[in-house]
Amino acid sequence: MTLNKKSYKGTRDFFPKLKRNQNYCFSKMTEVAELFGYEPYDGPLLEEVELYKAKSGEELIDQQIYSFTDRGNREVAIRPEMTPTLARMVAQICKEVPRPIRWYSIPNLMRYERPQKGRLREHWQFNVDIFGAKNDFAELEIIQMAIMLFNNFGADENHFEILVNNRIIIDFVFNDLMTLNKNDSYKLYKIIDQSKKVGPDKFKILLDELGLPNDAKAIFTNYLKINSFQELIIFLKNHNFEFTKWDAENFYQNLKDLKIDQYINFDTSIVRGLDYYTGLVFEIFDKAPNNNRALCGGGVYDNLLQIFNEAQMTGVGFGLGDVTLNHFLENHNLLPDFTDPINDILLTYQNAQSESYTLHIGLELRKLNIKTIIPPGEIKVKKAFNFAENKGCKLIAFIGDNEVNNKTIQIKNMKTKEQTTIRLKDLIKIKDLLN
Amino acid sequence: MTLNKKSYKGTRDFFPKLKRNQNYCFSKMTEVAELFGYEPYDGPLLEEVELYKAKSGEELIDQQIYSFTDRGNREVAIRPEMTPTLARMVAQICKEVPRPIRWYSIPNLMRYERPQKGRLREHWQFNVDIFGAKNDFAELEIIQMAIMLFNNFGADENHFEILVNNRIIIDFVFNDLMTLNKNDSYKLYKIIDQSKKVGPDKFKILLDELGLPNDAKAIFTNYLKINSFQELIIFLKNHNFEFTKWDAENFYQNLKDLKIDQYINFDTSIVRGLDYYTGLVFEIFDKAPNNNRALCGGGVYDNLLQIFNEAQMTGVGFGLGDVTLNHFLENHNLLPDFTDPINDILLTYQNAQSESYTLHIGLELRKLNIKTIIPPGEIKVKKAFNFAENKGCKLIAFIGDNEVNNKTIQIKNMKTKEQTTIRLKDLIKIKDLLN
Repeated sequence: MTLNKKSYKGTRDFFPKLKRNQNYCFSKMTEVAELFGYEPYDGPLLEEVELYKAKSGEELIDQQIYSFTDRGNREVAIRPEMTPTLARMVAQICKEVPRPIRWYSIPNLMRYERPQKGRLREHWQFNVDIFGAKNDFAELEIIQMAIMLFNNFGADENHFEILVNNRIIIDFVFNDLMTLNKNDSYKLYKIIDQSKKVGPDKFKILLDELGLPNDAKAIFTNYLKINSFQELIIFLKNHNFEFTKWDAENFYQNLKDLKIDQYINFDTSIVRGLDYYTGLVFEIFDKAPNNNRALCGGGVYDNLLQIFNEAQMTGVGFGLGDVTLNHFLENHNLLPDFTDPINDILLTYQNAQSESYTLHIGLELRKLNIKTIIPPGEIKVKKAFNFAENKGCKLIAFIGDNEVNNKTIQIKNMKTKEQTTIRLKDLIKIKDLLN
Repeated sequence: MTLNKKSYKGTRDFFPKLKRNQNYCFSKMTEVAELFGYEPYDGPLLEEVELYKAKSGEELIDQQIYSFTDRGNREVAIRPEMTPTLARMVAQICKEVPRPIRWYSIPNLMRYERPQKGRLREHWQFNVDIFGAKNDFAELEIIQMAIMLFNNFGADENHFEILVNNRIIIDFVFNDLMTLNKNDSYKLYKIIDQSKKVGPDKFKILLDELGLPNDAKAIFTNYLKINSFQELIIFLKNHNFEFTKWDAENFYQNLKDLKIDQYINFDTSIVRGLDYYTGLVFEIFDKAPNNNRALCGGGVYDNLLQIFNEAQMTGVGFGLGDVTLNHFLENHNLLPDFTDPINDILLTYQNAQSESYTLHIGLELRKLNIKTIIPPGEIKVKKAFNFAENKGCKLIAFIGDNEVNNKTIQIKNMKTKEQTTIRLKDLIKIKDLLN
């Protein structure tokens, strides 16, 4: 019997090049989270399905979740997203831990999806959340983190934009101005949510199908014309919006004060599904026209702990998937070349008698924190140079009888070809050659 | 409805303290692997069950694997171990990639186990493997890595030992000397494999039940008395073992030459189940009497690619679980305190007008790679000091009208209480205060 060598549909085999690429992305995520004082957490791969039933949309449970019954008759699922786990964990400790709670995680998640560009069945997602901080502060911090992360990858306002809306605004327009019933309101949400994907023509058809009264339609048309914070503020003032519910003016002023307003725009089409969110919502988009899927989504949610009978606590957070992020970074040529690893020295021996001496030196170098590769067995000079190059070694050493007898090693710099002899007792000097 | 806040049975919620602990262990693993020039890889969470049927023991498939049928009618399983995935991946690239292949990974794995101390349903496992290197070299390198890893955690020969055997020796004793048939040989394997767990009395009973012929029993009793490499070598010479099959003398000499022999002993009870292994096998044990479970197991396998119809390629590797490792490190007090995070500066503001200035400074500090926490909202001095302490901040800053007007910040060292005024344009000087 011959087995299939391919990975399971919609998943990736991370060969070293791809894994280095992923590690690079993870390290940038970790770096930014830690710069803002966020603390790492993680949860289990499996959760009881009940948790997702309580927290996630129907579509997720019915069509997208990997669920099964375990040997103890528990209905469990592979985590399709991190927020329910996060809520469960925060519910455990929210009474004891000082606020705010600032946490981040980079879990692997699975969804049963039709694999396509930017969507796989298994992906990793950077999750950042702050609980128990006042909303206007927390919103700003979370957005700052997202921007700094993209900046640290080398991306700026030419590469990406953050499109913002607020559930409070949407509710105001749908309920107070358009006086939609719950059912129509739900349908309109869905239509808006899909508008970027389906395009303007299909959007118009879907809207017509809904058959809104003329008054409501007129207001909605005006709402859709809003294209900036300035226009939003005028619209809200014209319709007597209570700014105590959400101070859009102050929010916009803060963006300008922090000099991050160039990244951010108000966008009526951002609604972020129906669940979780209760205030600000945002999505990050690639500005390149060939990539119109959201890279990242987030916002404010107040009721995450409700299902655990815990008191309301404000949360703000975002999730950023590794597949969409990588797609964006590739699209803009923002990734280093991960083909070869990075090492310090290739240690080669010229005959069998020198092996033991070479292994000994190898151990000593590693104790000095020098990344050392030893090819197994004797190796010809030309092959050794190729080996060193493929493994990204800065130095190469050839060890033979002379070196063994004199207790030295001969080291050559791969770039400058400069040669140095170093005595066994002075191995630490190799560190100078590496700088 | 109130949901359960506990994690799924046999899994852990990694609150920040525990996650920092895990990250610490992972960073030591990564460090050692990279010091030896091993390259990172990872595979999917799910594999088709076929792969495990071909590679793993029956017990695993029947009782311990998390398997289910996906929505596309594929029989899949959550990975219970990494080696089958590794074999599948190496089979894909073994014809193109230069040898040796040196890879490492730290995947999360799941087994349906009865949770107990040192055994959980979900754990992480450090996997290190080298393919396509000559055996005697690869064995030594893998063992060196294991030792350096434990050393880098602060453990030495007083804390742990590596017990070694070789499948070739076991086959020689069972087949050539004892002339056991396949069935008895299999049973004896199983009995030996359990001997450390069941204790000497139960071991004797199991052995008697097997009803070996007297000759075989006598040889086996002699074999069991071997307690060192010296004794092994005498035993093998007495029984005319062909040392070309495995040069035990040379192996032992190498351990002495590399000055790692104090960590390693020959042990007749190490057999490592029945699968994979074809040569040297080893397990690492805690020397403390309260912990008798193997921390780590590994060895030589030659036929891993056979199920993919690929040519034989020698592999040597080991796997080390995070649960058992952590148990060992706790047992010997080798873990730092992970209660608090480590941060650089707590930036506080004394009134609402100073918030924007504070947020601005926060951004600038983070751009300088300074880990900066800002409490959301005004905060009293005493509370601020507590906050800074809980978050492991080295410095604390209080920002009010004075600072805003003078474009400065006042910084206090949390330990020395020394106070410094720094101008906004000289923020980089804070780096000096952190050293």
